[in-house]
Amino acid sequence: MNTTPAPAETLSDPDTPFAVVDVHKARRNINRLAARADQLGVALRPHVKTSKSLGVAALLHDGTPCPVTVSTLAEAEAFADGGYTDITYAVGIDPHKLPRVIALLRRGIALRVLLDSRAQAQFVADTAREAAIAIPAQIEIDCDGHRGGLKSDTPELTEIGHILHEAGCLDGVLTHAGESYFAYGAEERRLAAENERGTAVAAAEKLRAAGLPVRTVSVGSTPTAHAAEDLTGVTELRAGNYVFFDLVMAGLGVCGVDDLALSVVVTVIGHRPEYGWILTDGGWMAMSRDRGTAAQAEDQGYGLVTDLAGRLIPQLVMSAASQEHGTLTARAGADLPDLPIGTRLRILPNHACATAAQHQGYHVTDSSPNSTAPAPAIEAFWPRVTGW
Amino acid sequence: MNTTPAPAETLSDPDTPFAVVDVHKARRNINRLAARADQLGVALRPHVKTSKSLGVAALLHDGTPCPVTVSTLAEAEAFADGGYTDITYAVGIDPHKLPRVIALLRRGIALRVLLDSRAQAQFVADTAREAAIAIPAQIEIDCDGHRGGLKSDTPELTEIGHILHEAGCLDGVLTHAGESYFAYGAEERRLAAENERGTAVAAAEKLRAAGLPVRTVSVGSTPTAHAAEDLTGVTELRAGNYVFFDLVMAGLGVCGVDDLALSVVVTVIGHRPEYGWILTDGGWMAMSRDRGTAAQAEDQGYGLVTDLAGRLIPQLVMSAASQEHGTLTARAGADLPDLPIGTRLRILPNHACATAAQHQGYHVTDSSPNSTAPAPAIEAFWPRVTGW
Repeated sequence: MNTTPAPAETLSDPDTPFAVVDVHKARRNINRLAARADQLGVALRPHVKTSKSLGVAALLHDGTPCPVTVSTLAEAEAFADGGYTDITYAVGIDPHKLPRVIALLRRGIALRVLLDSRAQAQFVADTAREAAIAIPAQIEIDCDGHRGGLKSDTPELTEIGHILHEAGCLDGVLTHAGESYFAYGAEERRLAAENERGTAVAAAEKLRAAGLPVRTVSVGSTPTAHAAEDLTGVTELRAGNYVFFDLVMAGLGVCGVDDLALSVVVTVIGHRPEYGWILTDGGWMAMSRDRGTAAQAEDQGYGLVTDLAGRLIPQLVMSAASQEHGTLTARAGADLPDLPIGTRLRILPNHACATAAQHQGYHVTDSSPNSTAPAPAIEAFWPRVTGW
Repeated sequence: MNTTPAPAETLSDPDTPFAVVDVHKARRNINRLAARADQLGVALRPHVKTSKSLGVAALLHDGTPCPVTVSTLAEAEAFADGGYTDITYAVGIDPHKLPRVIALLRRGIALRVLLDSRAQAQFVADTAREAAIAIPAQIEIDCDGHRGGLKSDTPELTEIGHILHEAGCLDGVLTHAGESYFAYGAEERRLAAENERGTAVAAAEKLRAAGLPVRTVSVGSTPTAHAAEDLTGVTELRAGNYVFFDLVMAGLGVCGVDDLALSVVVTVIGHRPEYGWILTDGGWMAMSRDRGTAAQAEDQGYGLVTDLAGRLIPQLVMSAASQEHGTLTARAGADLPDLPIGTRLRILPNHACATAAQHQGYHVTDSSPNSTAPAPAIEAFWPRVTGW
């Protein structure tokens, strides 16, 4: 049969605002970190909390689900349903959530939980005994005072190690260099990475010296993963944001603005020339309220602006947002470009994790050189995992 | 049959974090504004963009769907499916979205669109003629330089009025006193309300003087709706946030902290006494990144903290957030309370619209005096409308 195919959908077609993932850039970001991990001789366990999408996660590997890190049990359950069997749930465990952990373990999922207190360790050990199942647990180590974890030199570390080990639950240690998000400069990030490694390895050695087996020594954050030069003693590297990257990472120098794989398509719906404003239909509901670059040398407002093909419009910035309105203004000294009502633009976000969370999924495009401009084709829609 | 009923679910049961609506407080907030509107002799058209929920909206009326305002066509479609027939879509129209507007009009929904440019008016008029259907349109008026709209004294106003009227599409004018969110003090808000009324009525009179029929004169924002003392010439009052209220509104003095009907239940998952931190499993994914009170006299961080029964723990504030972690700290001079791992708390948000948007729906409780403490019963789950 000689049928004419229906015209393919492009970024000009869905009603705005909507989120777009450029798989060309995502693959480039993924390959870059995979090559670094190979060089460093360490396994990668990507964090899927940024995209929360089986479609995006499939870019990480060639058809075979890889080890992943998750931020919610809803992600763990969805990834287990998608064939992922090796999962670390990297938020301190709430005892109330252990029944769902046990249900995943009974499905054959190698799910690890995280904890940093005797109370949690005792609860995990007691629950494991009652359920007659090992609940693999990692002890969270604090390497930079960012959030949770034990200092590697506290006596509690080995006490918790013993509680877990006696119930067959001790898996290892995990740390996250959260302060590296404020490490401006390659040398500062290299030092943050070395501190992260050193602290995790020191904690592991302390447990081993107490006769406790440590299988996993897990480190990572997107800035340190790209800065580490030596990961001796570390068994795995976690990072998540790097698949999409964002303006915070570009402001740090971890990536370039051209590496950003996530954007939001918006439409011009108004002009206020007396104030120097172009109004769009993409407000904070589409971008999130995240203003991560406000603390950086260059404040990028709610985001940078590109045309529909992804070419930066350097004189513009999204400087304000209400629920369903975005305000674009010109950089100092620049003129507002002429963008009539109905013009579609893309906004590059401050913080990919927060912007992605405002959407139910992603329209997928491919900006590789053989793809078409000015309105890239939509190749797929990849839903996100929602809730907890 | 004499069966024992299954134990009712309470706020102790679902895994955290999750959003809760207290219908007792929501009803009190609803009744307060309804009484004001009655006194002022004006119709109410509540904005459903905060809750985006048919369940919450049903509290607004006694079984008969009332006129509503929406911020997305997805809301308009969901509310039309729920029996609402009188809807204003109060974001400047993107011409690309008119097919969905026409589809709703053809279902018999009285849907009004908003615009503030000749280009939009011409597009609406042309599309209405082609589709042989009136597309009721309101002209957005700028009363305080907050966002979109025309100044009431610009010649464009009557030009746009004529374009719409000739296509049978002119419905009226609409303004929103967005700057009233920064009006600290009752007198300032009263003046903002009077300015909002005066500007909208002046625009309507200008159109009428040009021989154009003006049916709707719509004003509103939560702060001005509670401050207006005279709405002569206005046909309807819009407000949305007031059903839930939030810490921004409490900081302005529009409500008290005890009026907040939306909260997020979280669980204590860690302690860092050396830093003065209690860590919870409710981060910005549960609260949003909104920091609306940062600009107010009292910065409430990411939110205030109550026990599970809703009693304020005045010495605590949620001072920091990462994706799935919240950090609670003591107010200056106060001691950290003893809250063991597993303790459930509720967080009162800065900005109800943004916090609600992080959730797929609401667990519903009722704090009226005859309900039980310390763990209120869950009466229902009300889903939210998502997407655009």
